[in-house]
Amino acid sequence: MVPVKNIVQLFPMVLLFSCQQPTDDSGGVSPEEKSAQKNDSAFCIVIHGGAGTILKENMSDSLETAYKQELDKAITAGYEVLKNGGTSLDAVTKAITLMEDCPLFNAGKGAVFTNEGKNELDASIMDGSNLKAGAVASLTHVKNPILLARAVMEKSEHVMMVSEGAEKFAIQNNLEMVEPSYFYTEQRMKALLKAKEKEQKKAKEEKTSSLFYDTYIKEQKFGTVGCVALDKLGNIAAGTSTGGMTNKRYGRVGDSPIIGAGTYADNTIGGVSSTGWGEFFIRGVVAHDILARAKYGNNTVAAAAKEVIQQKIPEMGGDGGIIAIDKNGNISMEFNTAGMYRASIDMKGNKIIAIYK
Amino acid sequence: MVPVKNIVQLFPMVLLFSCQQPTDDSGGVSPEEKSAQKNDSAFCIVIHGGAGTILKENMSDSLETAYKQELDKAITAGYEVLKNGGTSLDAVTKAITLMEDCPLFNAGKGAVFTNEGKNELDASIMDGSNLKAGAVASLTHVKNPILLARAVMEKSEHVMMVSEGAEKFAIQNNLEMVEPSYFYTEQRMKALLKAKEKEQKKAKEEKTSSLFYDTYIKEQKFGTVGCVALDKLGNIAAGTSTGGMTNKRYGRVGDSPIIGAGTYADNTIGGVSSTGWGEFFIRGVVAHDILARAKYGNNTVAAAAKEVIQQKIPEMGGDGGIIAIDKNGNISMEFNTAGMYRASIDMKGNKIIAIYK
Repeated sequence: MVPVKNIVQLFPMVLLFSCQQPTDDSGGVSPEEKSAQKNDSAFCIVIHGGAGTILKENMSDSLETAYKQELDKAITAGYEVLKNGGTSLDAVTKAITLMEDCPLFNAGKGAVFTNEGKNELDASIMDGSNLKAGAVASLTHVKNPILLARAVMEKSEHVMMVSEGAEKFAIQNNLEMVEPSYFYTEQRMKALLKAKEKEQKKAKEEKTSSLFYDTYIKEQKFGTVGCVALDKLGNIAAGTSTGGMTNKRYGRVGDSPIIGAGTYADNTIGGVSSTGWGEFFIRGVVAHDILARAKYGNNTVAAAAKEVIQQKIPEMGGDGGIIAIDKNGNISMEFNTAGMYRASIDMKGNKIIAIYK
Repeated sequence: MVPVKNIVQLFPMVLLFSCQQPTDDSGGVSPEEKSAQKNDSAFCIVIHGGAGTILKENMSDSLETAYKQELDKAITAGYEVLKNGGTSLDAVTKAITLMEDCPLFNAGKGAVFTNEGKNELDASIMDGSNLKAGAVASLTHVKNPILLARAVMEKSEHVMMVSEGAEKFAIQNNLEMVEPSYFYTEQRMKALLKAKEKEQKKAKEEKTSSLFYDTYIKEQKFGTVGCVALDKLGNIAAGTSTGGMTNKRYGRVGDSPIIGAGTYADNTIGGVSSTGWGEFFIRGVVAHDILARAKYGNNTVAAAAKEVIQQKIPEMGGDGGIIAIDKNGNISMEFNTAGMYRASIDMKGNKIIAIYK
């Protein structure tokens, strides 16, 4: 087991106040006010900030409060976009950008470190109205990977771009580029050093080479942000962004930038964003599989999500969670881990912000 | 329209004899002999060498013969593996390795060039018995990308690795590395120069920047190799390998290394390898979608493949084809283009080698 408590304690309070403020004024509405603004318009939104071994006994009150504040900020900003008649794509982009800018989440600023001490970022986005999609992987200089994924979708003939080539496209499209040091946070560096120490110890114990990951990979893999939204026009969009896995090597790519695994949206059925042990989510094509079970099997998206997350993925040996919205605006937040940072505002304006099971 | 005839004529006869010989002796069995070796064992195999604007009137007799010989060599070698009790994974690996080594196909030796004059290779493989998978993208030094995809699947905790990181893993696992010049073929370089010339001409005509692809992208996108096999134990495997798209930029990744889009295998339903306009195949999650339609919708794999390739993908604006084998050993070779290089040997030992519709 990883010392989750230690990792959690690595986040000093200073982080809680270092998240970028939203550039619009939507962050000032309290949950209570929001709940009071119920209306019957058919729009809703759901976000996640990663699933994993998140236990209440390992979480300080102040950190819990900070996470909830940031989830509230992101869900509220995305909801405001929808409320003002904006598109689900804009809502997804807004919510994910805010979470990328917040060092509490493993995406954008605050991304975990690779074995080489770098931050490599992945993201994807999909428009359920036309099945258009954009995906990027192995970025090191793009401040907001979700914005590049969207640019790939809207301004190129392509769906997926990786590494330097993707960043060249980002520069040509005037996206904000930053020095790699922008992504540095002391906490994530400490997590890397901790992971390496554990790896070496384990390798020594087993008298094997530490060339490759050991089984504690399971505990290092989590952390993603994602959003699914349904707008007033009935269009569904989904997006996912991640900093990957602490101590990762070999240009490993997880499920977040894989259309079908990490992200999928199709107006005729629903939208999904995944967060979990990426390898299993790729092998299970989780986002698409949930929607396919619903679409072809005459199942609800919620029931299909339960099948995949509570049965199929655990049977394969993986874990994690998903958020989903079906074409009728029903929201799912399904996970098989101890916790998943999550928030939603349903079609009646009811807001949920939660962390534990 | 691209001058397909010109491109075809660019392949000199010398190429026809430069493909590596298979290292086993399975290549010497003629189609007639093979057909005579019918047996009732439930194993079969199918391969493709890419789909696209392949018209008989643009193809010289000698080139057609050469393609058929190479398809025969690959399908026969894969079939021999199965016949001798080998696994479907070994059969897929064998057939694809041979096609990667042959400069006639856009995979391995003979890969097309990027805009920068490089060869960037992608591949993926999946084991239907346990849903394990391996995928690699943006390789420049690995002689046989399919072997690296398999190593990622079998010797790492990961599913997908890209760029230098993937090549580092290849070296650590003693895969054969080559200088980038190994992949050079005069014909593919001429195709790049031709594509650039056309791009510039078009940009000039439209008085726009040539910074991005124009619509002739459609004609430059094809070329992939793939294989699906069912072995005597009832295990299905699928694999795909490609050199990508002529004149590609920005680290573009197509569907070939995407589990779900380019490749999928699941013993409980079947296996698929795709070849076509990668962007549409990613957005449609084609390989997984075909199998999901069959599995959840109580459809046959063949009917589902027809739906996806003849309806869904064309409606989206894309084209291409797939090969598939269902759990009962039924083979599909479905495409909506003028041609698809393809071959199969069914459970009765009947061999098909074909190019045009």
